[in-house]
Amino acid sequence: MRELTVDLGERSYHIYIGEGLLNEADTYFSKHGISNKSPLLIITDTNIAPLHLAFLEERLQGGGFKAFSAVVPSGEGSKSLSMLEELIAKALDAGLDRKSTIVALGGGVVGDLAGFVAASFMRGVKFVQIPTTILAHDSSVGGKVAVNHPKAKNIIGAFHQPEFVLYDLNLLQTLPPREVRSGLSEVVKHGLIWDASFVQWCEDHADRLLALDADSLGYALHNGCSVKASVVSQDERENGLRAILNLGHTIGHAIEAVGGYNGLQHGEAIAIGMVGSAKLGVRYGAPEEVYTTTKRVLAKCELPTALPEHFDVDAIMEAMMHDKKFAEGTMVFIVPSAIGEVEIKSDVPVAWVREIVEELKLEVEQL
Amino acid sequence: MRELTVDLGERSYHIYIGEGLLNEADTYFSKHGISNKSPLLIITDTNIAPLHLAFLEERLQGGGFKAFSAVVPSGEGSKSLSMLEELIAKALDAGLDRKSTIVALGGGVVGDLAGFVAASFMRGVKFVQIPTTILAHDSSVGGKVAVNHPKAKNIIGAFHQPEFVLYDLNLLQTLPPREVRSGLSEVVKHGLIWDASFVQWCEDHADRLLALDADSLGYALHNGCSVKASVVSQDERENGLRAILNLGHTIGHAIEAVGGYNGLQHGEAIAIGMVGSAKLGVRYGAPEEVYTTTKRVLAKCELPTALPEHFDVDAIMEAMMHDKKFAEGTMVFIVPSAIGEVEIKSDVPVAWVREIVEELKLEVEQL
Ligand SMILES: NC(=O)c1ccc[n+]([C@@H]2O[C@H](COP(=O)([O-])OP(=O)(O)OC[C@H]3O[C@@H](n4cnc5c(N)ncnc54)[C@H](O)[C@@H]3O)[C@@H](O)[C@H]2O)c1
Ligand SMILES: NC(=O)c1ccc[n+]([C@@H]2O[C@H](COP(=O)([O-])OP(=O)(O)OC[C@H]3O[C@@H](n4cnc5c(N)ncnc54)[C@H](O)[C@@H]3O)[C@@H](O)[C@H]2O)c1
Ligand SMILES: [Zn+2]
Ligand SMILES: [Zn+2]
Repeated sequence: MRELTVDLGERSYHIYIGEGLLNEADTYFSKHGISNKSPLLIITDTNIAPLHLAFLEERLQGGGFKAFSAVVPSGEGSKSLSMLEELIAKALDAGLDRKSTIVALGGGVVGDLAGFVAASFMRGVKFVQIPTTILAHDSSVGGKVAVNHPKAKNIIGAFHQPEFVLYDLNLLQTLPPREVRSGLSEVVKHGLIWDASFVQWCEDHADRLLALDADSLGYALHNGCSVKASVVSQDERENGLRAILNLGHTIGHAIEAVGGYNGLQHGEAIAIGMVGSAKLGVRYGAPEEVYTTTKRVLAKCELPTALPEHFDVDAIMEAMMHDKKFAEGTMVFIVPSAIGEVEIKSDVPVAWVREIVEELKLEVEQL
Repeated sequence: MRELTVDLGERSYHIYIGEGLLNEADTYFSKHGISNKSPLLIITDTNIAPLHLAFLEERLQGGGFKAFSAVVPSGEGSKSLSMLEELIAKALDAGLDRKSTIVALGGGVVGDLAGFVAASFMRGVKFVQIPTTILAHDSSVGGKVAVNHPKAKNIIGAFHQPEFVLYDLNLLQTLPPREVRSGLSEVVKHGLIWDASFVQWCEDHADRLLALDADSLGYALHNGCSVKASVVSQDERENGLRAILNLGHTIGHAIEAVGGYNGLQHGEAIAIGMVGSAKLGVRYGAPEEVYTTTKRVLAKCELPTALPEHFDVDAIMEAMMHDKKFAEGTMVFIVPSAIGEVEIKSDVPVAWVREIVEELKLEVEQL
């Protein structure tokens, strides 16, 4: 079992990572002062519920907790205010009170949604995260919770830190392969911004990670969480440093937006975005290996590293403009200066970004 | 001009109370670091907009602020998630960003709603309160913001402190008389829980308060805010002491709930509730004058002090049970031990409460 602390003063919390942790869910809940007098509500989605919900409920009920559950449709669409309203109704019907706890059993969607329920129900109750995806190593650190508005993603939310995070690696065994790859993209990102040796390790262990080898997964998630925790504990409310977590995301978000429903997954889009950022880094004088290594490690994780032919450069630039990070022909960009090191550049010429996006289309996939 | 500080560590803020403060709204905004680069959104309601919105907009625009506005229907119904969604759309359309500010121009309804917009938009932006009711002296201290759920009032919200509060007494001149009386009920409450001399002052100045005499109003609001600020700064997240602010509210909420739409206003219902609490205090050994003084000062403010004939005692008790403050035949109650002093009693026999409610029906109005 691996363990780490997200250091946020009085809001600090622990992340436990290991196989079979859910077997002792009740022990963890007791140890962290979760009330067994007030009912608690587990929120999960329609894919995860049939696989893992009953087991968690049994463990908690067996330990004397009054566990209720709510299952939302899987997918980004559940991160909405109307789903919030439904879940608050469930919480009230189950008799939850100010000493109750909301438990997220799921990936980033469930985590963000359940987290906002916890942040806003009775102006804030306790929150526990039980992540079931690799990507959720990212969303379970930092306390950002939110739902979407028809006009913008993640625009209605809060900062609400969990009591603790219980990362049972066994839950990941049922994850569809495309979700595995997509999650690894953020793992690699955490290496690229902070820790060159971890990038090397990812390259060496990509096969084992893709095969969901528990020990490799545990190490990767521990390192990914640690990097994010270091960044977040220096900048909880996103005033500066936290921006480096957006490596690859400016181009990536635009690719996602343009791709629409049949497009690329988040992790896939940011993989291409990170290759773009690496190219930009090289333009700014970083050694060529920043680009070659970035591309190689992502390819080993079976992530795309080139922009598929059918994507339109104009549409991608348009989507980026929409993101409002532009100011008079320049934009803010997270740019690698070496593997494991990035800089926040606030005056990247838009023209350069456009050239990079064009190059990404000509890029040859490395397999 | 009167001034006070709500002392909450790094979340401390100032309340300015005086005549004509809105004339210098732009100066206050600048002084408190409100950005004139990022657009700001004023939220108000359909009663207040025609009276006071244009003036505020002019002052702010004149001072170089990019002020946009949104007008919601007046009344409790606007404290909803669907209104939140509409307002977030307005904020996005107006181009608000993370450095923007939400301004509440209104009473408790607008304050609670706009405050929750500010708390949740982009996970929290700045918030300024410009109260237009007497009751809002209560809601503008303490940072509680919320919307309602069809199943429960104020159940979805946050703690989000404003940057500052600008209380222009001129705005109160347009307040309907029933709103004036209702607001005074909470002013008196702040005296009853904390400050006997202020209760005496309220009795002596009730006529002037009802006539909206600016100097008396300024003094009353300053004192009311100060009491609430003292309580809140000792218990920001409502873990203990803050409960004393609920004097009269347990019975009061039940009266409101039973009354339905044609029933009593909040301030009226809690006035009756405070008479009930005073009677309970006397039962517990407080001097008789706790009851007589409470009744006299409320009557001077032209507030009801007896339960109207048509109210059903069973229905009121039922509504209280619903509030879930009962445990095995006893309940938590805020009980005065002297004028200006209350105790939190956690084991008040339900039977006593019932008797008090019955007595409240037999009470003779004092005029
Ligand atoms: N809060 C943050 O800091 C943060 C950071 C990154 C991403 N996010 C958010 O996270 C979301 C994406 O997260 P995600 O990729 O985990 O998506 P997700 O939660 O939708 O999970 C992906 C898919 O896998 C399924 N699934 C999850 N666990 C499973 C399991 N163990 N077995 C089988 N199927 C399983 C889900 O039902 C879903 O269909 C986005 O909404 C994004 O905004 C938040
Ligand atoms: N956040 C808190 O700590 C807190 C505390 C107490 C009450 N509240 C909330 O406050 C709300 C009640 O507040 P309220 O009594 O101010 O109600 P309100 O905001 O609805 O105002 C009462 C009425 O007066 C009108 N009005 C307001 N200002 C006016 C003016 N200057 N001229 C003419 N008309 C005017 C309004 O349009 C409304 O019709 C409730 O929703 C309650 O939950 C919150
Ligand atoms: Zn991401
Ligand atoms: Zn009240």
